[in-house]
Amino acid sequence: MSADRPGKPLKVALFGSGRIGHVHARNILANPELELVAIADPFIDGARALAAGTGAVAVSTADEVFGIEGLDAVIIGSPTSTHVELISRAAAQGVAALCEKPIDLDVERVLACRDSLRGNETPLMLGFNRRFDPNFSAVQARVAAGEIGKLEQLTIISRDPAPAPAAYIASSGGIFRDQSIHDLDMARFFVPEIIEVSATGSNLFCDYIEEAGDFDSVVITLRGRNGEQITIINSRHSAFGHDQRLEAFGSEGMLTAGNLTPTSVRKFTAAGAEEADPYLNFFLERYADAYRSELDSFAKAVRAGTACSPGFDDGLQALLLANAAEESARSGRVVKIGQA
Amino acid sequence: MSADRPGKPLKVALFGSGRIGHVHARNILANPELELVAIADPFIDGARALAAGTGAVAVSTADEVFGIEGLDAVIIGSPTSTHVELISRAAAQGVAALCEKPIDLDVERVLACRDSLRGNETPLMLGFNRRFDPNFSAVQARVAAGEIGKLEQLTIISRDPAPAPAAYIASSGGIFRDQSIHDLDMARFFVPEIIEVSATGSNLFCDYIEEAGDFDSVVITLRGRNGEQITIINSRHSAFGHDQRLEAFGSEGMLTAGNLTPTSVRKFTAAGAEEADPYLNFFLERYADAYRSELDSFAKAVRAGTACSPGFDDGLQALLLANAAEESARSGRVVKIGQA
Amino acid sequence: MSADRPGKPLKVALFGSGRIGHVHARNILANPELELVAIADPFIDGARALAAGTGAVAVSTADEVFGIEGLDAVIIGSPTSTHVELISRAAAQGVAALCEKPIDLDVERVLACRDSLRGNETPLMLGFNRRFDPNFSAVQARVAAGEIGKLEQLTIISRDPAPAPAAYIASSGGIFRDQSIHDLDMARFFVPEIIEVSATGSNLFCDYIEEAGDFDSVVITLRGRNGEQITIINSRHSAFGHDQRLEAFGSEGMLTAGNLTPTSVRKFTAAGAEEADPYLNFFLERYADAYRSELDSFAKAVRAGTACSPGFDDGLQALLLANAAEESARSGRVVKIGQA
Amino acid sequence: MSADRPGKPLKVALFGSGRIGHVHARNILANPELELVAIADPFIDGARALAAGTGAVAVSTADEVFGIEGLDAVIIGSPTSTHVELISRAAAQGVAALCEKPIDLDVERVLACRDSLRGNETPLMLGFNRRFDPNFSAVQARVAAGEIGKLEQLTIISRDPAPAPAAYIASSGGIFRDQSIHDLDMARFFVPEIIEVSATGSNLFCDYIEEAGDFDSVVITLRGRNGEQITIINSRHSAFGHDQRLEAFGSEGMLTAGNLTPTSVRKFTAAGAEEADPYLNFFLERYADAYRSELDSFAKAVRAGTACSPGFDDGLQALLLANAAEESARSGRVVKIGQA
Repeated sequence: MSADRPGKPLKVALFGSGRIGHVHARNILANPELELVAIADPFIDGARALAAGTGAVAVSTADEVFGIEGLDAVIIGSPTSTHVELISRAAAQGVAALCEKPIDLDVERVLACRDSLRGNETPLMLGFNRRFDPNFSAVQARVAAGEIGKLEQLTIISRDPAPAPAAYIASSGGIFRDQSIHDLDMARFFVPEIIEVSATGSNLFCDYIEEAGDFDSVVITLRGRNGEQITIINSRHSAFGHDQRLEAFGSEGMLTAGNLTPTSVRKFTAAGAEEADPYLNFFLERYADAYRSELDSFAKAVRAGTACSPGFDDGLQALLLANAAEESARSGRVVKIGQA
Repeated sequence: MSADRPGKPLKVALFGSGRIGHVHARNILANPELELVAIADPFIDGARALAAGTGAVAVSTADEVFGIEGLDAVIIGSPTSTHVELISRAAAQGVAALCEKPIDLDVERVLACRDSLRGNETPLMLGFNRRFDPNFSAVQARVAAGEIGKLEQLTIISRDPAPAPAAYIASSGGIFRDQSIHDLDMARFFVPEIIEVSATGSNLFCDYIEEAGDFDSVVITLRGRNGEQITIINSRHSAFGHDQRLEAFGSEGMLTAGNLTPTSVRKFTAAGAEEADPYLNFFLERYADAYRSELDSFAKAVRAGTACSPGFDDGLQALLLANAAEESARSGRVVKIGQA
Repeated sequence: MSADRPGKPLKVALFGSGRIGHVHARNILANPELELVAIADPFIDGARALAAGTGAVAVSTADEVFGIEGLDAVIIGSPTSTHVELISRAAAQGVAALCEKPIDLDVERVLACRDSLRGNETPLMLGFNRRFDPNFSAVQARVAAGEIGKLEQLTIISRDPAPAPAAYIASSGGIFRDQSIHDLDMARFFVPEIIEVSATGSNLFCDYIEEAGDFDSVVITLRGRNGEQITIINSRHSAFGHDQRLEAFGSEGMLTAGNLTPTSVRKFTAAGAEEADPYLNFFLERYADAYRSELDSFAKAVRAGTACSPGFDDGLQALLLANAAEESARSGRVVKIGQA
Repeated sequence: MSADRPGKPLKVALFGSGRIGHVHARNILANPELELVAIADPFIDGARALAAGTGAVAVSTADEVFGIEGLDAVIIGSPTSTHVELISRAAAQGVAALCEKPIDLDVERVLACRDSLRGNETPLMLGFNRRFDPNFSAVQARVAAGEIGKLEQLTIISRDPAPAPAAYIASSGGIFRDQSIHDLDMARFFVPEIIEVSATGSNLFCDYIEEAGDFDSVVITLRGRNGEQITIINSRHSAFGHDQRLEAFGSEGMLTAGNLTPTSVRKFTAAGAEEADPYLNFFLERYADAYRSELDSFAKAVRAGTACSPGFDDGLQALLLANAAEESARSGRVVKIGQA
């Protein structure tokens, strides 16, 4: 572990060479605290392409990764179905892990995993990257510092630019577990204890989502322990780019975080005034800073031996809320959240 | 009726000399299409004070008003409990009426009133002034014109600057029927046919509202006939003034209408940049243009002998939605809207 | 004079039935302090059309106006060449006057007029309407109150939507005396004592302005007594509507006043985000509030018998600055401003 | 040279270990095209501290730098007085150079340097970093692409957060050559050929700048070959942070680039609405992207063997304009720009 090698970068292996794998690989390489030693993907060509010129080895199995001498940490960006196993192996071997959300789509598997990890203090971080977005995290910190008094209503608007392909949708676990889960975690970032969930879903524009029995548009209402009202508005598309905003309304004021434009340029013509550039299109651009900052936070926690945040329980709680939202949307009833 | 006296202003009487009475009185006086002939209030001193110097007579009873020779129209700004009777008398006598919302707090009385008015074509307008706000009406017109494709999600944020006094709250009919009803009508302005309502209420800051068995903060989710999702977020207070915004999100874009500042001045200091003036504080300032435009629309419709919009049925539908929202917030269940 | 008839509205006559005459007529009619008794225009049909239904008489000569019994005030919105004579007659007769800018294009005539008025205390106001714009006047008041410390740099951007017709340009006195004069007065609203003027002019887009020996685009730099730097940027056209802004930069911060949109609506599409409506197109809309407020200020001063502001000397000083700017643009030298 | 070693990073040495040296060092280390081999500073401790852990050697003389085997490029971030000599040595040795502005404060030395470089095609780039700011460069590119028709007026507002210390001011060459030179280059980025300069300077807040015979606030007006009007407004301080904006006004519209905030957070309270965070404080943060992009552009040009832009002549022209501005501010006359 790192404590044994002060000053040397942490040896990190990356699972997954897809879109999110590329983000993590680039950030690991740019982070002086981290050394990328391996990229693992059963689709070995993907691993090789990503590893080229980085000094990392490309491997196809977890066994090869966990056999690396002096491995400090793994970043798990492989498909959801692999998360529980990789988390478990890392923990068993004392290797820190940063795992993309969700832990698993099956809450029973997640609970079993939790039980098996009990007592194991190997650092484990859940990849709710938006907690590290400088805009959202600034609002959260300022609310926590009391700048707007007591938080009363939180509004989260979160729309993807375009629906994922049909194949992705089919195995996504549905909009609540795939898309809304980020916003449910954001709700918990501000109001950790949620006691009620109600939700509604619609099929407004995407046939293949409807055919998959999933919704393309949802609204979720949460209630916190102290009566806080949280509203999440999601859509699987947005003509004007990734729509990622929130408003924290408190007894003494409001703090908002808005969408991001690539530049500060504004255009004025006879057709309209003050027109901004189109918004950053999707999460890779929108959350570029957040991913960097997330990795940095992970590296620091591992190095310091402190607990990672968000952690396993945050992943579990977000999944329970997503399940509750789905249940509410299907039943037309408010769902109470107990202790899992 | 007006048709008999082309070119002459319509003779108008005003019920109520309170806050909203003052707004209407000033607008009638400034409108060349209208002549203010009487102001009625059982609190005759209020009527007299408002009538002073206007040429209108101050009276204390409806009988006096309806006895005025050649009366063309009444503006009903007296307490809610008087609305049904005044609407009925005006209609019976063929006098046009512009009545403040709600028609009544008791849906049975409203339905009975509706039945009694059947076949009577005397112009009757409901005072949902926000439909005449230049910002909201521009969004509605542009959405209706297809500028953002098909409307999918509508978000209405509506917060009063401060709670009304305890006495007002006690007879207000509750937040859904008193405050949210404006937003429920706004929802119907965009999506006339609502099929489902769900709502949640909290007590976050005002003891006397809680003691009255009412909520100070609510979130309402509506579903339209075509699956449209409408979210209404209400609070009885707002530290930064009257918070009145909406966002119409469609398949091809979004149109929003924001809060209003008294000037375009912005301030830049070491403490912060681009600070706008505090928002207009309450509805009298925020909707000054809307009240003027509403009265103008009423005058034009009466003069032209065309139907008023919004009309009696809009008042009824908004009340039914408010009742449904209350029922949902109390029961934790989605409430389906049938045909009333 | 008004002092003799407390409580009654002031009797006002209007010279000129053109564009600005219409603005003043409408505002006089809406102002309970004022009674419009006559509209004068040698083009008597214009006067008649504007007077129709207002209760005012239409006349074609100044003699008829000044023969009106009990006349309290005149609003001079007739051509510039008539201003000096009408101001003089009003003052001689003790009739208050609100005169559009400029007093005259010929500074010698203005100085002679000033001399002839010496000792005469009849109220006289110059129509620099922008001092009454709620945005600019708020900035000026807040700067004067010390909100940004000591004023150091003032930037005024002022562009008309489109050039006036060739015939107007020919008799306008040139861009400095016709357009910039408003901004030069605005400069003096913030920094009354200007000691140096430098200017540059270009011909960038309008042939007939160039043929008239005039500029279509100018930049003026002024220096105040305390070293304040004031920049005025003018153009005779602007594709995006009337561009009317200013920035007051001080030792402790900055206050700005921006352009006005008809609504708060913003549009978001794949082409761009946060697009506002096109700006209000020209001065009649942009300064509607300012004209109302200007007339109100005039009425109050006349009623109270206090001095009007801006007054005759403000008109003279703005003209001297305009002449200095022209001289600088022609000579390529800074022009010092002495005492006139 | 690079052409001999395809695929290998360029060997780069850095002159200067001060504030700007730190920026360049960090960017070189993060750029895979570049290898930092040496840091030179007569203050060897500074060089050593900056070189620590980077793999670069710390040296105290230019001789040591130019003796490095296979050196491809130098970044000149040492004091202005060293620029001409280092540029000359680099060119003589065929080593590419990126030199901070200005080339020299003495135009004769610059002209002599230019003559001595004639015929030498070694890449040489001038460090006008703002040309690489994504906001300004986007406006420039869109103007060049004709998006707003013909450019007519360009307004550049550029204020530093606080004056440099007295010692720096004394050797800075004055505000025109030290601060305005960036804006004069920005003017040439949009309008390469300037034919007239006029300027005014004031002493408004800083005693030691006045004692040094320098100004703390200046306004410069330029005229381009086609009559374009360019206004530059500078101050040595700004209470609200680094104020760096520009507006390009054309025949068909306007494009603006505004100040940058660290986040998109906005605050709403009873005191004011929509308050943004304080602006990024100074050039190291404000132009972080620009410095990175500038270095990238330099590396690409050196690698490709193409001409660098901005180049030596841009440095010369900006200096000539700064001198002309100073002359104008001292003489009160427009200064014509000839061919140097």
